[in-house]
Amino acid sequence: MPVNIPTLLPEHVLPVDGMTLGIAEAGIKKPNRKDLLVMLLDEGSQVAGVFTQNRFCAAPVVVAKQHLTRSHIRGLVVNTGNANAGTGETGIRDALVACNELARLTGLAPQQILPFSTGVIMEPLPVDRIVAGLPVAVANCKKDNWFSAAQAIMTTDIVPKAASRQVQIDGRTVTITGIAKGSGMIRPNMATMLGYVATDAAIDHSALQFLTRHAADRSFNRITVDGDTSTNDAFIVIATGKAGHREITRQDSAEFAVLQDAITAIAADLAKMIVRDGEGATKFITVQVDAGKDADECARVAYAIAHSPLVKTAFFASDPNLGRILAAIGYAGIGDLDVSKLQLFLDEVLVADRGGRALDYHEEDGQRVMNQPEITVRVVLNRGEASTTVWTCDFSYDYVKINASYRS
Amino acid sequence: MPVNIPTLLPEHVLPVDGMTLGIAEAGIKKPNRKDLLVMLLDEGSQVAGVFTQNRFCAAPVVVAKQHLTRSHIRGLVVNTGNANAGTGETGIRDALVACNELARLTGLAPQQILPFSTGVIMEPLPVDRIVAGLPVAVANCKKDNWFSAAQAIMTTDIVPKAASRQVQIDGRTVTITGIAKGSGMIRPNMATMLGYVATDAAIDHSALQFLTRHAADRSFNRITVDGDTSTNDAFIVIATGKAGHREITRQDSAEFAVLQDAITAIAADLAKMIVRDGEGATKFITVQVDAGKDADECARVAYAIAHSPLVKTAFFASDPNLGRILAAIGYAGIGDLDVSKLQLFLDEVLVADRGGRALDYHEEDGQRVMNQPEITVRVVLNRGEASTTVWTCDFSYDYVKINASYRS
Repeated sequence: MPVNIPTLLPEHVLPVDGMTLGIAEAGIKKPNRKDLLVMLLDEGSQVAGVFTQNRFCAAPVVVAKQHLTRSHIRGLVVNTGNANAGTGETGIRDALVACNELARLTGLAPQQILPFSTGVIMEPLPVDRIVAGLPVAVANCKKDNWFSAAQAIMTTDIVPKAASRQVQIDGRTVTITGIAKGSGMIRPNMATMLGYVATDAAIDHSALQFLTRHAADRSFNRITVDGDTSTNDAFIVIATGKAGHREITRQDSAEFAVLQDAITAIAADLAKMIVRDGEGATKFITVQVDAGKDADECARVAYAIAHSPLVKTAFFASDPNLGRILAAIGYAGIGDLDVSKLQLFLDEVLVADRGGRALDYHEEDGQRVMNQPEITVRVVLNRGEASTTVWTCDFSYDYVKINASYRS
Repeated sequence: MPVNIPTLLPEHVLPVDGMTLGIAEAGIKKPNRKDLLVMLLDEGSQVAGVFTQNRFCAAPVVVAKQHLTRSHIRGLVVNTGNANAGTGETGIRDALVACNELARLTGLAPQQILPFSTGVIMEPLPVDRIVAGLPVAVANCKKDNWFSAAQAIMTTDIVPKAASRQVQIDGRTVTITGIAKGSGMIRPNMATMLGYVATDAAIDHSALQFLTRHAADRSFNRITVDGDTSTNDAFIVIATGKAGHREITRQDSAEFAVLQDAITAIAADLAKMIVRDGEGATKFITVQVDAGKDADECARVAYAIAHSPLVKTAFFASDPNLGRILAAIGYAGIGDLDVSKLQLFLDEVLVADRGGRALDYHEEDGQRVMNQPEITVRVVLNRGEASTTVWTCDFSYDYVKINASYRS
């Protein structure tokens, strides 16, 4: 079961002026479930994105990256049930067919459409079902469909993921709403399979792209469930410009900072929801590495802990077998690490110090923290000023169960 | 259950002239099990070793490395049930206490003893129990105790692991016998927690050290169960020199090649047994990457596949969800990989080609291979001449079960 995700209600997800969303049940993998999402943006919207680093990136990722650099984007089409990845030239053609059809239905150019897919890899996309479903999705496009949109992009997710907030910019109320999906094959870069954040703020394209990268690096690129990087990951930020304030063009302005902080916060909320709903997750783990020489070595230590199956199964068992964390720190690849100088904390409990168990450590204190559904592992390297935080979950029977039966 | 490990009988494990082995039930973690092993070497023996790269390496590893560079080694003391790792200065003192006691009982110097431990990390070594058990172990030292020795070093291993072979060198019969333990926390470098290979061949120290590194790189450093690198891994090769041929001193000699090949073969046999007995393993997977630019990139691709929880759970389920292998290849970190040029084979079945599913691929062929207990995944990168092979196992409910309850 997801770890401490508050129940999402439709009224929690605020509409964003300047765009509409439509959903269809296209029967892409299974009948009678929402599996097709269309987003339509008013003229003048800005769109920025960051995409998976996987060399086997999916066909829609290839097409979306091309379209994003060339055109003013006005539409997005997202399907679940099939990733259209590992599908070669046919996959590219299928992604373009989806763009063409949405363009035809809406009077736009195909290059103004971004396609996205998520689901099983290396199976042909049933693009005819997408084509058949698009008229329904377009016909029901409306502003307040965000909750249904969050449902429509789910695959192995147990709960839909969405978040909203409002900030003041230049005397105007600006709304930011995001949705995301993903619970396995989760690792930076990117981490979530799909994340969309929209705002009615007005911001130019280069500032928006900068902001998107910044937000991704502090949210979706800081989570891991199983260390597998998806072929389809994408994080898209849409700014419709309808809020009525002056366009943000300078990254050193106060308005930019307010917007960037708000969008980063929404992205981090969504990213943490993905971990809380990680496949089989029973615990939410924050791994914080402090006082490293640079952010890179902090991240290496944090990910060594967050990826270790032995550490993750110990969390699942609530077993304070904390030597496994020391072992992970030791193989993180920092050649000159002096283990006698570091400290390991479990929440506020000092567990290890001077290369071994801390003198004041009592197992009942470690056990008390391990029993909690939310745990912070903090490693203090004591060799510099840098810090990194990563979010992950434990590793349970259900992870194996879910992934041993995903296609059936 | 272990995957295709033939039942080991005591008569399969040949004694090695020039050394004896003794076992005791010291009650280190649990009563009534063999958990203490002593090996005593005749004067003139050569000993070489390679050890874990983990920065949190265990106290006995620190001591063994020091003793190995300084002295002619005559004794080894190995305990299971406690790793004496993450134990700081106390751990070093405890490892030296074990050396001192074995030295006292045998009339050797403490520096002539190598200590080894395996088991739980970050708990104090109950060295008093080792001291109490050593007289029994020394008293029952004999040549043909190899089978019991293989049992005495087991932790979560289901079966004892040993192998023997004989070769002719210089007209003399040379015997090589090895034992190993390990089934979780298995990843290069080193891979096994503990491996010992002994021969009665005569070889000088520098040639033996070269040979040991060569054998490790083709065996224990090519296996992975869960990607976790232990704090205690060690691979030790002992040469007693009793076989009666002229001492091998040149690495370009035919005699050296015969011995190196034989010891490497024993080491590879033992390494594969560790994977076959991997925690929760139901399948033995060979991952072979061919036609890469260099061995390093082949290894990166091979380990990306071998470590992917999604790939490993698909093998557990016998599910030919082979897109997961493509995804792992894609995130292996080869920035200029052209995925349209590579091929993926499952045994002899061509699965993927030209960036997608091969035209002639039928899922029933993939399913047939996936149903087997032994499977070869072959990736042909088509960008060079290098190759690497890695051995791994699948990822099952039982892996989680074993590691969620290891200490209880």
